[in-house]
Amino acid sequence: VDDTLELGRVTDRRPPFKYSALARVWFSDTDAQGIVYYGRYLPYFDHSRTEYHRHLLSAPYSQAGGDLVMRALSVEYHAPARFDDLIEAFVRVRRIGRSSMTYECAAYRLPDDVLMVTAELTVVLVDLDTRKPMPIPESVRDAVRAFEGADLEE
Amino acid sequence: VDDTLELGRVTDRRPPFKYSALARVWFSDTDAQGIVYYGRYLPYFDHSRTEYHRHLLSAPYSQAGGDLVMRALSVEYHAPARFDDLIEAFVRVRRIGRSSMTYECAAYRLPDDVLMVTAELTVVLVDLDTRKPMPIPESVRDAVRAFEGADLEE
Amino acid sequence: VDDTLELGRVTDRRPPFKYSALARVWFSDTDAQGIVYYGRYLPYFDHSRTEYHRHLLSAPYSQAGGDLVMRALSVEYHAPARFDDLIEAFVRVRRIGRSSMTYECAAYRLPDDVLMVTAELTVVLVDLDTRKPMPIPESVRDAVRAFEGADLEE
Amino acid sequence: VDDTLELGRVTDRRPPFKYSALARVWFSDTDAQGIVYYGRYLPYFDHSRTEYHRHLLSAPYSQAGGDLVMRALSVEYHAPARFDDLIEAFVRVRRIGRSSMTYECAAYRLPDDVLMVTAELTVVLVDLDTRKPMPIPESVRDAVRAFEGADLEE
Repeated sequence: VDDTLELGRVTDRRPPFKYSALARVWFSDTDAQGIVYYGRYLPYFDHSRTEYHRHLLSAPYSQAGGDLVMRALSVEYHAPARFDDLIEAFVRVRRIGRSSMTYECAAYRLPDDVLMVTAELTVVLVDLDTRKPMPIPESVRDAVRAFEGADLEE
Repeated sequence: VDDTLELGRVTDRRPPFKYSALARVWFSDTDAQGIVYYGRYLPYFDHSRTEYHRHLLSAPYSQAGGDLVMRALSVEYHAPARFDDLIEAFVRVRRIGRSSMTYECAAYRLPDDVLMVTAELTVVLVDLDTRKPMPIPESVRDAVRAFEGADLEE
Repeated sequence: VDDTLELGRVTDRRPPFKYSALARVWFSDTDAQGIVYYGRYLPYFDHSRTEYHRHLLSAPYSQAGGDLVMRALSVEYHAPARFDDLIEAFVRVRRIGRSSMTYECAAYRLPDDVLMVTAELTVVLVDLDTRKPMPIPESVRDAVRAFEGADLEE
Repeated sequence: VDDTLELGRVTDRRPPFKYSALARVWFSDTDAQGIVYYGRYLPYFDHSRTEYHRHLLSAPYSQAGGDLVMRALSVEYHAPARFDDLIEAFVRVRRIGRSSMTYECAAYRLPDDVLMVTAELTVVLVDLDTRKPMPIPESVRDAVRAFEGADLEE
């Protein structure tokens, strides 16, 4: 029995991305236009961010005793995905500030590698009780810095 | 400015139901078959249950210091709703046990009153920390009993 | 029996917005942080856009024989909404191009009028078969122009 | 580059189930009780049914020129899953009628193999235009019969 599920992978195919995660379009992701509902790409990118931090052994939320909350996002839609499409969601941390991180994401359809959706998401680490911003832990910062190298803005 | 939003109403049109709540089908509720995704009726029924307890001034979760968790449900699908349909979701408490309540629900489309979906849902009140069943508060039981009358099973 | 459900209203409280729609936060909208999942504001804004066009008697999708598809969006999160909060979602068409419309949206919590989320969404009208952009119908353009007046960019 | 994504597998660990599919709990699946929203298990079971039919090379919807629509379902909740839990969703066709199929499903958490949720779902194949029931194609019936063997009711 395989009790793990590795859905992310290190990749050099689309620099500056260094990591991607796979997701299958489920029927509940579609809408009456016959395509993926535009809001449903956000969970795909959540998934790629979760796998990314799992790979780096650095889940910022749990280690810091805080919550990562969404601060701002922008999304561009290039082509529509459909039921049962296989999506490769590239993800990287583009910038780390004191309390915030900005992710860049891009979803491609496999196997034809057509670009579906790109996004930029900025999250802030907040204290669980006060909801005030708190510093990103050094261990997380170090892990991201080591993985992203010179492409990371600080 | 109207700062309330009354989406439920007392009704005698479909006994033994005595209450219904209105909901509009949103685009994000639909799927690639062009109809409402079958799992999306559950939030409509959540909504009718919330409005029902608001009307009875008896939200069991908050008053008891516990969580209402789903224990079992069954749903039957009679006809498919579509984007922008207006749904009237009838709801009643059919039975109150020591720690559980069973709701009966029925969703009709307006204005043609076609039956879309029926459901029965059994929830259990559990302690927030131990997750063990705890008694339904007497105030909730009294309010439901007063509203449902002889149709309530205990 | 009331077979309509008016959830939108003309308003002059937050110019240049002239319209808003009400929405209640459902339990299925929340996430494990105890707040509304950040992606769930998009359906609230869909709702406000649907009510807006209903009020203008001008649903662009149906009248044109095309589909309105999302092209780009940006969202900013100011404060977190919670279960059962009442949300007033302001909406306006800020700009109409040949095939596209850009909406500005802002969600406030009632009754304390705290700003939760702002968004800008650009949709494109596409032909159902070819998925190519097609012109926004003149009837829609006229209705929006009449309602938004000098605040509309063209 | 791996352009496939095998999330299902043949198994003999929980007869009469012969197949299971893996799914990771995403953050958007959780609710304000800190657990998976009870309605979100339905997409997990959709996923297991899709992978099951992919394995059998027999997607009934596409081959028949019809739509599989939900007719009835019942779900029982045994224990709550949480964010990032790994779910193994067992699935089998328990019964094939002329136009309908009844699936039995069971979701276990890995690696501790605790039972989360069980479900029974009955779908009907309907003609795309008339929405009337149509016969399950013989090729689908044969594939399911060959895979499920004597456990299949007909």
